[in-house]
Amino acid sequence: MTPAVVLFSGGLDSTTTLAWAMARGFRCHALSIDYGQRHRIELVRATVLAQRLGAAEHRTIAIDLRAIGGSALTAELDVPKDRSDEAMGTGVPITYVPARNTIFLALALGYAETIGAFDLFLGANVLDYSGYPDCRPEFLTAFESTANLATKASTEGTGRFRIHAPLLKMTKAEIIREGTALGLDFSLTLSCYDPTPDGLACGHCDSCLLRRKGFAEAGLPDPTAYRLENR
Amino acid sequence: MTPAVVLFSGGLDSTTTLAWAMARGFRCHALSIDYGQRHRIELVRATVLAQRLGAAEHRTIAIDLRAIGGSALTAELDVPKDRSDEAMGTGVPITYVPARNTIFLALALGYAETIGAFDLFLGANVLDYSGYPDCRPEFLTAFESTANLATKASTEGTGRFRIHAPLLKMTKAEIIREGTALGLDFSLTLSCYDPTPDGLACGHCDSCLLRRKGFAEAGLPDPTAYRLENR
Repeated sequence: MTPAVVLFSGGLDSTTTLAWAMARGFRCHALSIDYGQRHRIELVRATVLAQRLGAAEHRTIAIDLRAIGGSALTAELDVPKDRSDEAMGTGVPITYVPARNTIFLALALGYAETIGAFDLFLGANVLDYSGYPDCRPEFLTAFESTANLATKASTEGTGRFRIHAPLLKMTKAEIIREGTALGLDFSLTLSCYDPTPDGLACGHCDSCLLRRKGFAEAGLPDPTAYRLENR
Repeated sequence: MTPAVVLFSGGLDSTTTLAWAMARGFRCHALSIDYGQRHRIELVRATVLAQRLGAAEHRTIAIDLRAIGGSALTAELDVPKDRSDEAMGTGVPITYVPARNTIFLALALGYAETIGAFDLFLGANVLDYSGYPDCRPEFLTAFESTANLATKASTEGTGRFRIHAPLLKMTKAEIIREGTALGLDFSLTLSCYDPTPDGLACGHCDSCLLRRKGFAEAGLPDPTAYRLENR
């Protein structure tokens, strides 16, 4: 089996990506990043999900991006709630973490090189996260070129790195249908940027709103556990 | 003053790079990475050096690359000692850390974005470290292109990131002469891959051999504090 590294947060998108890669026969090494995010409960869920899905391995790298700051996900800024579709579709949101996908892909690259993998998967999505510059196809292509110049593997010509973002052009509803077809139980996945410590979703942040709308558009029941007042 | 982020380990090369950037009028924000390296004493030296050189700020990001492994600098592998010039010039050394410069530059990019800087400095050098793929000019150019697609700053068109590697084509002797001309006291810088806990250099790893040879070729006294048996 071909080994692959899958960036895996335990959210809806990366869990679907992991299931997608596994269904295509990759031996998946899931990589989670503990970057000081306020929604750290996702790391606990990721461990459970990686095991249930049958990943070959699940590692978590700790990196304290609070030393950088600059995002509502890591700094002491408020996570925006109940934004309109237009507001969400305009500009780069405050939940953007500076250079996050560059940092995460670099870590995935180092991990891949160590285990001899050349396939990197991530759940980047250009439709729902149009405001995140590091989810755009041109960024992923540029990173792939860089990866192929950055590594011992590339110098020695033993292989060529490929960045896979299978959800890149799917809507949230399409992702949910795809995951459902792959047999996923989305109740364990956590997308909320501001959950309770035990993982109940707030129901109002951008991520909750997109996810909720996605289930509605897919015509499927939303299995998310929300805080009591939001059910 | 133009702000810049300088990747700064407290070694000979990155200290010269910091002095170089400061001499050219940049307001330097030094960034050290605590990546579980066995030569962690360099982080203590970096703090002292950044202050002495007058950096505007010095931050250290902790990231445990031991979760990835694959290098003598982070895993439980032996650091090679007393290698010949030919051996050092052949292949990628075991002290190569998978994707290290990609990871470090990604972190520098996130930091730069947070403080509004577009200039990133690193002490990469192609002559003495010809075996490290991520010190080559083509890698740095590729990373620069990626950086300009990766960020909010690049999306909003407020600036263009530049990667500066002023030592890229200098020999170790030239770097030492340059640093000396900039007024550096190299006795505080630590290059050794395998120092004692209090920072005495082993005198035998690749990095010590290159540094020692550099001082000899520059015709300058080597101020490095070596272990007693190596003086």
